Formats: sequence, structure tokens, C-alpha cells
Amino acid sequence: MRTTVKSPHLPFGDQRTAPWYGKDIISIKQFSRSDLEYIFAVAHEMRVMVERVGTFDLLKGKILANLFYEPSTRTSSSFLAAMERLGGNVISISEVRYSSVAKGESLPDTVRTLECYADVIVIRHPELGSAAIAAQAARKPVINAGDGVGEHPTQALLDAFTIHEELGNLENLTVTMVGDLKYGRTVHSLSRLLSLYNAKLHYVSPEALRMPPEIIAELEAKGVSQTEHRTLDKALWETDVLYVTRVQRERFPSEDVYESVKGAYVINAEVMKGAKPRTIVMHPLPRVNEISVDFDDDPRAAYFRQMEYGLYVRMALLAMVLGKA
Amino acid sequence: MRTTVKSPHLPFGDQRTAPWYGKDIISIKQFSRSDLEYIFAVAHEMRVMVERVGTFDLLKGKILANLFYEPSTRTSSSFLAAMERLGGNVISISEVRYSSVAKGESLPDTVRTLECYADVIVIRHPELGSAAIAAQAARKPVINAGDGVGEHPTQALLDAFTIHEELGNLENLTVTMVGDLKYGRTVHSLSRLLSLYNAKLHYVSPEALRMPPEIIAELEAKGVSQTEHRTLDKALWETDVLYVTRVQRERFPSEDVYESVKGAYVINAEVMKGAKPRTIVMHPLPRVNEISVDFDDDPRAAYFRQMEYGLYVRMALLAMVLGKA
Amino acid sequence: MRTTVKSPHLPFGDQRTAPWYGKDIISIKQFSRSDLEYIFAVAHEMRVMVERVGTFDLLKGKILANLFYEPSTRTSSSFLAAMERLGGNVISISEVRYSSVAKGESLPDTVRTLECYADVIVIRHPELGSAAIAAQAARKPVINAGDGVGEHPTQALLDAFTIHEELGNLENLTVTMVGDLKYGRTVHSLSRLLSLYNAKLHYVSPEALRMPPEIIAELEAKGVSQTEHRTLDKALWETDVLYVTRVQRERFPSEDVYESVKGAYVINAEVMKGAKPRTIVMHPLPRVNEISVDFDDDPRAAYFRQMEYGLYVRMALLAMVLGKA
Repeated sequence: MRTTVKSPHLPFGDQRTAPWYGKDIISIKQFSRSDLEYIFAVAHEMRVMVERVGTFDLLKGKILANLFYEPSTRTSSSFLAAMERLGGNVISISEVRYSSVAKGESLPDTVRTLECYADVIVIRHPELGSAAIAAQAARKPVINAGDGVGEHPTQALLDAFTIHEELGNLENLTVTMVGDLKYGRTVHSLSRLLSLYNAKLHYVSPEALRMPPEIIAELEAKGVSQTEHRTLDKALWETDVLYVTRVQRERFPSEDVYESVKGAYVINAEVMKGAKPRTIVMHPLPRVNEISVDFDDDPRAAYFRQMEYGLYVRMALLAMVLGKA
Repeated sequence: MRTTVKSPHLPFGDQRTAPWYGKDIISIKQFSRSDLEYIFAVAHEMRVMVERVGTFDLLKGKILANLFYEPSTRTSSSFLAAMERLGGNVISISEVRYSSVAKGESLPDTVRTLECYADVIVIRHPELGSAAIAAQAARKPVINAGDGVGEHPTQALLDAFTIHEELGNLENLTVTMVGDLKYGRTVHSLSRLLSLYNAKLHYVSPEALRMPPEIIAELEAKGVSQTEHRTLDKALWETDVLYVTRVQRERFPSEDVYESVKGAYVINAEVMKGAKPRTIVMHPLPRVNEISVDFDDDPRAAYFRQMEYGLYVRMALLAMVLGKA
Repeated sequence: MRTTVKSPHLPFGDQRTAPWYGKDIISIKQFSRSDLEYIFAVAHEMRVMVERVGTFDLLKGKILANLFYEPSTRTSSSFLAAMERLGGNVISISEVRYSSVAKGESLPDTVRTLECYADVIVIRHPELGSAAIAAQAARKPVINAGDGVGEHPTQALLDAFTIHEELGNLENLTVTMVGDLKYGRTVHSLSRLLSLYNAKLHYVSPEALRMPPEIIAELEAKGVSQTEHRTLDKALWETDVLYVTRVQRERFPSEDVYESVKGAYVINAEVMKGAKPRTIVMHPLPRVNEISVDFDDDPRAAYFRQMEYGLYVRMALLAMVLGKA
């Protein structure tokens, strides 16, 4: 993203003093701890307002271009609902395979066209770095909704906000991450955010899907307590947040290896008897069978509430970059 | 659907006394005659309001998730327009083949995710019983927009409402159904609704596409007068409502059989000389050639007005389940 | 289109005196010079309003059916944003391959269904004459958003409006069109509009892609000064408006011929040193490489502003045919 403040298309005088006005949201590296506190406060306000009135006209008159180069119904619906609950409008562009892009148009040209119609751009793109390229080209603020193996910062923020709302704060928590920690982009980002809050981290995964050494090294340098496990039992009893990810068959060298380990990473009502009464269970969704439906009605099952917190976080970010928070 | 009242996400105190607040709309079996009268009264109010002001803000602040697992432009557009004319917003999800579902997500999980963003869910799904499954999973009201060989209750309601608006009431009418009565889901539902109103029914179809015996038996038990015909001439002269459906070539054992009968089920200006001046002609659309375009400008041609009545019925149902009617 | 005034679905008494109320927009042949002045005046008002307030409720209560039989993200997004900035709602139908059309429904039936839900219809269709067929069938106003090798009148209007806004008027300008002048629908329409304004036209193209003789003859009959060139250098120095189009490889008999000429039709910073300081460069977009990105930051590069002017023109047309301008 560019470091200068952009000028979204509306002339309200006091916007320019808002700290996030005209900024892009590209990476969680942009956020200090006080930034996170600010986002959580705004997102909490959004929650209160939605619970009270459903929608309100904070962004009336603004248009979001929701530009999805690859499908992600969950994320695009969440941004769409966020904009609508703020009284704004949305241009959804998901059929990129048919658009000018298919005729050879560059990403910067597409972005410069869309900002003629819209006030803010959300972009999902399969290629690392694409969100930054879009932000560089755009005069209007750009929000990264996932750029391939790069980042998905609004997912990381909603994960952190979920913990904040469910447990009251993020300080001094024991967080256990389970499943595919190697390819799971969400656990990498979340562990980095938690490093700002003196978290104690447990990583529970099969050997082949361990948390990448460079992330462990990065957090170690910040003094974060990290422990690796092959099974959940050593960590579960003291866990405040259990973050579950999908273990995909195709990540394993053979069917045999997959079958031998998969049971160790399935959460169900029986397993959760070993956890504390206020432990929360999270999952980025969609799940397949790594959390059993027999646990869904347990109050500790936070994964659907997590989706709702995502709505509030995205409402907060949209309002912030448009100078209205 | 669940029999308990759901709690859609808005806190207006007096909603809870509205009779349809929080209910699902899954099957026409839910509706008594007095329920139908209520729906028709609300739908008629919607018609008056749309004719007077176009849109109004009865559902401002509410979001509809329009979840289509199979394409149906007509039905999805109708619900979309209904929500927009009520001042609400819509999340359209029609590319289900690309969504989390394609990654193996279950229907209950998809519904529980969407209700984090939306206040009411409309679902179209190719499988029998899917709407009931969705309703069971959801905390928010679910409206069935067609579940395969199951039901399409809003189509049945709009058919009945069309008759109500065009002819003033549904009492003691002679209704003739023409074409494919075996596979035509709409005629099955409509005949059941008409059984509440002392209708006299004529069924005109080729031998291979007769009204199913179980429906005839069901209506006979209710004392409905039913007569089957191979050709239209015996019934047309006394018909108040002529309900035409498509006879598809692929339903016949051979091309010869199809060719030999198809002419008997085509309505045109010449055929309609044998009908009463106030007979109305209906069709669920799309038509191919079972109603000739030479009849389109006849005031008795009600099939495009029928689409418009569908808008009012869907507005009524959305308002009802959200506690605003 | 029909020549009689249609009656869009709203009862404001004074609409019927608005000159474009209920009219279809099908062809640039509909527009006299005074019509263009009127459109430009309304579009300029739209620009002022968008710059001042973003959106406003001129078309609140109206619904646009955006019916795209072939994909065109740019045009559909532009109409969508136009309607949203006017406070109206949109039904987008772009998956026509899955809709009733795929079941054999005729264009008139589709249009007559959609107008049950909507107040105005925008149609994009690959076949010549389809917009006129739709307009003939519809009771509500129809706007042609491109009908194959036919016309794309809103593109022509936005091109003319761009010149109007950038240079203050269209009178007595020297306009140079570059690239594929044979198949480029936009240059045909623009040259016709410019013939109303005493323009001097230069056509710069390879031999195989010359401006069609029938257009040259038509404009010659109106006394327009026209000169053909193979290269840009003879015309550039006196050019006020440089309109660049894409030269597609597949239009040439062989790769060799294409390679030998393509360089002559690429605009870059170096080439533009030969142009006047207030010359503007336009392009219908998407571009591939016929304008180098090294020229994008030059104030004379008007091609992205051109997209924005398109928004204002479409807002103007929607307001006009709905009796609100």
C-alpha cells in the first residue's frame, strides 16, 4: 500500500482527522497493539448497533466494490452484509473470468476503473502480493480479503476479536492451535497477533503439518511461550482458546499416514470433557469433520459466533477507512 | 421446520404478537383457509402500496440471504425485488458450486453461517426435504423456494392469489388444468389449495401425463369434484381458470406419441373463442409454445400479471415472518 | 423502440411532462444536437451532485433490471453504480445461460417478466436488433447496453460527454481516431455524433482496418472534414482529442503483417511529446498495450476519467427515462 493518505470521494471536513481515513488494509503487520484495541472498540460498537437496530446509515452514500478473483462466498457475503448494515451499497464482481481481465486487462487498470464507480475496494485474489499492487494503483482505500499464500488480515482480526468478545480480553491466554499448522494461513496470522498479548501457545499437529520454523523463530524472538505436541491431551486441560483447522487428506504422503493420525485432531463432545468450562472452540470454517456436530450445541462452541464477529470487524474496517469511525 | 417461534434479529417489542413472526414457510400444508385469507389480505396491501409508492421502508434494516443451490432467475429475482421494494437488503448466493459447499460444507453449516449476516433465508435446493433441514438448523426464518420434487409453496400461493385478485375470490370456481399434470409440481399444490374453496376441477392431459392417483384420492376424500379429460373441449366452456403447463417432449415414450397429442394442449386465440369472456389463463412460465403469442394481448391472458402477483405474495411472506405484517 | 410514451410504474403527476419520460434509449440516431446538450447538462448535474454528496435519492423507490446476456463487467458495474448513486435498487441478471432463456424462453417473454419486478430495463445482448425487440415488448423503458454488431449508445454518449467536460464543448474540434477503425463500434458511433459539431476528423489505421467506406460517405454527405492516414505523425500535432482503440492480432491475415504495423498505433509518453499540451487521450478500455502505462500519470490521459463520465451519463439517462430529470 502507499503510505500517504488517500482521498476517498467525499468532502466531509472532519474525516481527514480520523486515524484510518483513506488507509489500505493489506497486512496484519500494519497493526500495533493500540491499533487492535481501536479496531476492537469500533467493532464492539458495531455489534451493539446491529443488535439494537439491525442496520444504520453510517456509510449511506458510499459504494463498495467487492472484487473477487476467486470464489469465497463466506468472505464476500460478510463484506456485502457489512456494507449493507452500514447503509452503503455494493458492486459485486465475482465473475472475473468473464470480465475485462479475461481480455488481458491488468489488475491496476481494473482497480482504476472500479474506483470510478466505488469509494472503497475489497479484493480477493489468488496471487501473493496482488492486494498491495491493487492498493498501489488505487486512489481509494483497498482492503485485502485474501491474496493466495499471502495474508487474509480481516480473518486474523476477526479471530482476535472473537477471543476479545468471548473472553473479555486477549491478555495472558493459553491458546492451542490444532490440525494443519503448516499450510493454515489463519493460525500463522493469529499467532502473530497473539504475540502482542503475552499469550502462551500450544501447537498440536501431525509431524508433517507442524507450525513453520520461521514463525516459531519469529515468535521466540518476541519471548512468546510455544510448545509443540503430537496429541491434544497434554495441552487441552489448560487451554483457554482451542483453534481448530482442517487436516486435509491430500497433505499427507500416503493414505495410511493420514488414517493413522486423523483421529487425534477431531474435536467432539467426549474430547471436550477434558477442557475447562469456559474454554472456547474456534474454527475458520468451513469444517468437514474435524469438529463433530455433537459439540455444536455446547456453549463453548464459538465457531458460528465467530462468523458474526467477522461481520462486526468488517463493518469497523469499512467505516474506518472511509473516515467514519 | 421447527414448531417453536424463532427470534429473528431485531428487538421491536410488538413483533412477537404477529402470528407469523419467526415462522418458516416450508409447505402449503401449513396453511389453513384463514391463513390463506390473511396472506391474500397482506399481499393485496403490498400491491396497493407498490402501485402507490413503488417501494417503502417496512423492512428497512433487514437482510435477506437468497440462497440458490440451483439456478432460477425468475424466483430469485422475484424475492430480490420483493425485499428491495420493502426497503430491505439482499445477499444473493447463487454460485453455490464454487462456495464452501463445494469444499464439503453441510447445508446446516451453510445456513448457520448465513444467518450470522442475514435476518431471513430463502432457499432453493434440488433435493426433497432440504428446505426442512435448513429450517431445522436455522435460528432465523427460512422460506422454501423449491426443494426438487418436494414443494414450491410460494408458487402455489401466488397462483391462488392471482385467482383471488383477478376474480375477486376463490369460492366455487371451475378450474381446468392442462398439460403435464403428472410431473407439474405447480398443479399438484394448486389443486390442494383449491380443495379448501369448494372448487370444481377438470384435468386435461395426455394419458401418460395424468394427475397422479394419490392426489385424486386425496382430493376425493375432501369431496372435491374432479373430472379427467384427454381434450380440452368438454371442459373449456365452463372454465373460470385455465391453468396451462408445459408438455415436454422428453416425457413421452416416442416422438410419434408426442407429435400425436401435443396439438391438443396448445392454447391460442382460436381455442379461446370457446371460453367465457372472464375466464383467465394462467401459466407458471417460462412457456415455450403451449400458449401462442397471438393470445398475449387478450385481457384474459393473466400469465404476466401472475408474475407481478408473485412479487406481492413474496413481499407479504417476508414481512410476515419478520414480524412486520 | 415504440414511438409512444411508455408508463413506468410510478404515479408522480409531473413526470409526464419530462421530455424523455418513458422513452427507450436504443440508438444514437435518436439524438439531435439539442438532445445531446440536454443529456450533457443533466450528466454534468449528476457529476456535481456525486462530487458533493456521493449518492442522493432521486430514484429512490425505483428498480433497475440489469439484464446481461453476455458478460461486460465494466458496463454492468457502471449501470449498477449509477442506479445506486441515485438511491435506486438493482436486480442483476447475468447468468442468463442458466435462466429460463436456457429453457427456451423468448426475449419478449423474459422482458415482460422482468418488468413485473422492475421500473426500467438495461439490456446487453450479442444479437443485432435485440434491444429494439426488447423495447417493443416492454411497457417499461429499455436502455440498450450493446447489441452485438449493432449499437452501444451509452458508450457513444459517454465518449462525447468526456470531450464536453474535458474541453468545455464539442465545437470545431480536431479528433483523431487511432487503431482498429473497421470493427471498432465506438469510433463509428462517436464520429457520427461529432458530425453534429463541425468536427475535423483524422483516421489513423492500418490498411486492413480502415474506417468503413459507408461511414465516410455518410459523414461526407454532412460536410465533415475527414482524412485518412497510415501513421499518426501527420495528424497528431493539430489533434484536440486522440481516441485510441485496440488493434487485435486476430484481425490480421498473418503474424508478419501484424508485427509490421502494430508499433505505429501505440501511444506512449514519447509519442505524446508531439501533441498539444491540452490534447486529451481517450480509450474505451480495456486496453492491452496500445497505450503505454508510462503515459498514465500525464494529465492528458483521460481514459480513466472517461469511465467516471460514463457513470454520470448513465445516471442522467436513468433519471431521464424515469421522468426525474
